[in-house]
Amino acid sequence: MSYKLRNASPEDMNSVLDLIRELAEFENQPDAVEVTVNDLINDGFKEKRSFSVIVAEKNNEIVGMALFYPRYSTWKGRSLHLEDLIVKKEFRGKGIGTALYTAVLKYADQNGYKRVAWEVLDWNKVAIDFYLSTGARVFDDWRVAQIEEKAMKDYLKKTKS
Amino acid sequence: MSYKLRNASPEDMNSVLDLIRELAEFENQPDAVEVTVNDLINDGFKEKRSFSVIVAEKNNEIVGMALFYPRYSTWKGRSLHLEDLIVKKEFRGKGIGTALYTAVLKYADQNGYKRVAWEVLDWNKVAIDFYLSTGARVFDDWRVAQIEEKAMKDYLKKTKS
Repeated sequence: MSYKLRNASPEDMNSVLDLIRELAEFENQPDAVEVTVNDLINDGFKEKRSFSVIVAEKNNEIVGMALFYPRYSTWKGRSLHLEDLIVKKEFRGKGIGTALYTAVLKYADQNGYKRVAWEVLDWNKVAIDFYLSTGARVFDDWRVAQIEEKAMKDYLKKTKS
Repeated sequence: MSYKLRNASPEDMNSVLDLIRELAEFENQPDAVEVTVNDLINDGFKEKRSFSVIVAEKNNEIVGMALFYPRYSTWKGRSLHLEDLIVKKEFRGKGIGTALYTAVLKYADQNGYKRVAWEVLDWNKVAIDFYLSTGARVFDDWRVAQIEEKAMKDYLKKTKS
């Protein structure tokens, strides 16, 4: 099977959003995606880019993508975060995910990033086994915490009074 | 007890690195910190800033800090990551950590970030209970994965051949 990897352009953001929605469904959160195509274009391709995307293309169709951006480790320094690595269901098991993952590591290595980090669901054993096989570590004792816009505003209101 | 919060300056990076090292010891990883004062100054205060820091100061001494930077959620959009929230041991329990946390949420809210995310050790119940009390969520089923520079280079070498 032949496919090519390339940097995404604004015109790809429709397909990228489809992939984001497909992943949200896989993770049982189909309604969680609030981002729009316009957000992706504005945030990914304007002067101050919030992220970069590599897409996998086959017969002019986007069949996978990796979305990443810089982070900062206070232990190691400049690092990269792989926010999403997605391959369309019918194109999985063909090495496209591995190729995207490898492309992100190559980008990190070539640009002097000291670490690449990401998050994985604990029941996604196939993914975890793959990551471990590449030399990555998966931490059992760290928990991800998040506060969303509404909760944030509620907290700030409460704190002020 | 009176203290003030302010944006950090390059001159604070010595104290900030001390706090980073104190946290690494608390997390049983005293040798993990490879970052230097020069790294922090270069990465935090040059043209392309990798992070921002708010420090808590008491009698001209830095007693706490919060270090954060932008991320991107493909579900919510522009978000903020709180990499470190540290208060010197002898100054804990006095509201300084809460004040720093609140300052970061305020910054996020005022700058249009849709989410603030961070990581917490699963045995740090005091921290987790505090975060939950503010309206944050702590996810049991996500795992943090990382690949470090050396493992990355090894993997890329193996993949090429």
